[in-house]
Amino acid sequence: MSITILKGDVVSAPALGQLDTTEQGYLVAEDGVIQGVFPALPERYAGAPVEDWGRALILQSLADLHLHAPQYPLMGTGMDLPLLEWLNAYAFPTEARYADPDYAREVYRLLSRDLAACGTTRVCMFSSLHTDATLILMEELEKAGITGFVGKVNMDRNSAPGLLQETTEESRRETLRWLEACQDFPHIKPILTPRFIPSCTDGLMTFLGKLAQERGLPAQSHLSENRAEMDWVRRLHPDCAQYWEAYAKYGLWNERTLMAHCVWSDQRERAAMRDSGVTMVHCPDSNLNLCSGFPQVQVMLREGVKVALGSDVAGGDRLSMFDAVAGAVRSSKARRMVDGADFLTVPEAWYLGTSAGAAYFGEAPGFAPGNALHAIVLSDDQLPQPHPLSLSERLERCVYRRQPGAIRAVWSAGRKIYEA
Amino acid sequence: MSITILKGDVVSAPALGQLDTTEQGYLVAEDGVIQGVFPALPERYAGAPVEDWGRALILQSLADLHLHAPQYPLMGTGMDLPLLEWLNAYAFPTEARYADPDYAREVYRLLSRDLAACGTTRVCMFSSLHTDATLILMEELEKAGITGFVGKVNMDRNSAPGLLQETTEESRRETLRWLEACQDFPHIKPILTPRFIPSCTDGLMTFLGKLAQERGLPAQSHLSENRAEMDWVRRLHPDCAQYWEAYAKYGLWNERTLMAHCVWSDQRERAAMRDSGVTMVHCPDSNLNLCSGFPQVQVMLREGVKVALGSDVAGGDRLSMFDAVAGAVRSSKARRMVDGADFLTVPEAWYLGTSAGAAYFGEAPGFAPGNALHAIVLSDDQLPQPHPLSLSERLERCVYRRQPGAIRAVWSAGRKIYEA
Repeated sequence: MSITILKGDVVSAPALGQLDTTEQGYLVAEDGVIQGVFPALPERYAGAPVEDWGRALILQSLADLHLHAPQYPLMGTGMDLPLLEWLNAYAFPTEARYADPDYAREVYRLLSRDLAACGTTRVCMFSSLHTDATLILMEELEKAGITGFVGKVNMDRNSAPGLLQETTEESRRETLRWLEACQDFPHIKPILTPRFIPSCTDGLMTFLGKLAQERGLPAQSHLSENRAEMDWVRRLHPDCAQYWEAYAKYGLWNERTLMAHCVWSDQRERAAMRDSGVTMVHCPDSNLNLCSGFPQVQVMLREGVKVALGSDVAGGDRLSMFDAVAGAVRSSKARRMVDGADFLTVPEAWYLGTSAGAAYFGEAPGFAPGNALHAIVLSDDQLPQPHPLSLSERLERCVYRRQPGAIRAVWSAGRKIYEA
Repeated sequence: MSITILKGDVVSAPALGQLDTTEQGYLVAEDGVIQGVFPALPERYAGAPVEDWGRALILQSLADLHLHAPQYPLMGTGMDLPLLEWLNAYAFPTEARYADPDYAREVYRLLSRDLAACGTTRVCMFSSLHTDATLILMEELEKAGITGFVGKVNMDRNSAPGLLQETTEESRRETLRWLEACQDFPHIKPILTPRFIPSCTDGLMTFLGKLAQERGLPAQSHLSENRAEMDWVRRLHPDCAQYWEAYAKYGLWNERTLMAHCVWSDQRERAAMRDSGVTMVHCPDSNLNLCSGFPQVQVMLREGVKVALGSDVAGGDRLSMFDAVAGAVRSSKARRMVDGADFLTVPEAWYLGTSAGAAYFGEAPGFAPGNALHAIVLSDDQLPQPHPLSLSERLERCVYRRQPGAIRAVWSAGRKIYEA
């Protein structure tokens, strides 16, 4: 049996808005499974090696539940364009390049290492429509020690014919080939990924819904990101009163479904999410960059909708989920200035970026015993001290200062995957 | 005569929303004064040494026209509190520490070096009320090669008596002592700095107004940041129809005046700014962190108000003005979602952070001949390429990615003050 013991100032998020703090505590894992956080080392571990990180913070790692891997090279470009123009001018031509496995290998290796260095150990990710590049992405993530789900994108209409679009038959065939080829990755699993309703024919959606049911596969897509998109979906599916029903009618609406954005989801759509256990993935930077809007995150949380965070690279311009956490606070403050609602506090946003994301993978909140060891060590001792800071003040400062160089080490599924 | 020739991909902002780009151009200065940007090296410089930065970008450096130096250690803490509670719980106790010259020396040395490394070479800065610490700040900025204005803060009421407040007499005496002692800094000059109207008695304001007139000193303060503050000013100065008049009636409202925030300035207040040549300093991150609001920057620009940018450390949580430029775009997008107004483009926000800030120091926009050499070299070749990027796309990406490590070298007033 292997024992991992990390000593430092331990902070975790056991519930929305709460922080558990243990100064100079011991986070203990056996065979990569957390046993607990202890103020003093339990006797049964006497003699086991302790990694002592001094006054560094030991935190949960972060979960990025929505990003587009092939758009990684685009981060921070074309942000002055509206969504649909941006897709045509930037996203589609870039994604088309992943027909080339060498380009895919180069970018996906950088991305995977960058994720580990940022302390993101759990992902749910869109690839492009290319099967081989998707397999390369899964391989590189696996090598870098990242865990989670990757989806070959399905898109057989309204995209970029001749550049980035499949026929329905190609999409079916390649999806089956991909699922066949990706069975052996231990930490990276497939997730069905219709790009969004406008880019998938009814025939393709029917196929994906069946596949989800037959093979017990999860699904991810976009929902109610902006009003033009919602109008488009209404025209394409006149039988559906709301956008979400266009996923539900094909069987892609359940407790394993991730829906990014949900900026304009009204009470009825939110109730549908809550009742079916769908997870809403809030992508604050992207929503602001693309002028999509400010979703009612606090209302959703109060109503019992599951909410996690995503970087939405490259609608979002930063890979680090520290930015997404700070961005979630800011997005809620921007919304407050419109409707006076409470804003998200830092502990609340931190919970969304850590425990709420991990919940999609079946984990309990915080460093709960039984969870896989996903943790980061973060050093803040190079920053000047205004006064002796509490652990929660230090966490807040790390979220806002979000200095990637401050991350000293990262564990994912029990393995140390990064050390500065 | 000393000649500086920088070769690289040169980008400058000659007018709002415009970029001048010269691939593999030569930026030439004689004795620290810019002669021009040339696509080929003019014959008269043949034989002069050329610093060849390859494919790196050569950009104007940035100007930060509003920040609180003593709050530097507070960056990113207490952001969940409203402004007045934050001042009492965080800002005032931290500022009080600058009674200790050793603490001042330690923090201001870090801050000054950090500014240089971020490519900020021009500042207008609040110190605390402490004369000695203010002189230490000026000395450390001077040593680090930063240029601009620093103000000993005046505050003789409604602050933190016993902790951080002067008597009117102390404030007068110390201001005179400070002005006496700071005459010999070549690049760092004094600026009168009443903290804001609520913290200065009429007697103190009268004194400061006279001083400004007698000695030709500029002034900086806060204006119309939030509504509670505006109500307070109205109660304190019932003779003034608007906040700005409480500065104007003491003679602190002219073309050398900087006013931070102006979030709620209406048409009449904006007209007063334009007519008197007052510069509005937009601090987007701070305005969002403190839920102050989104100022009408585009309206101000259209009306002819001078607008520059500030980090507002520590209401703002980042020192780099790349963040303030990206923040200005985002703030305008947030405002767009309220009133549908156009957002600021990246070239527009870049102009505000560079040329518009330099204008306060009497410089012409862009790398105009006659300007002092203030420039940064920024390398972006470690980022993956989605496609061959234009110089303006590369600038945009650098603004959004805002990686401090990308800055390779910085010139300020003709001197190289930083090299990575």
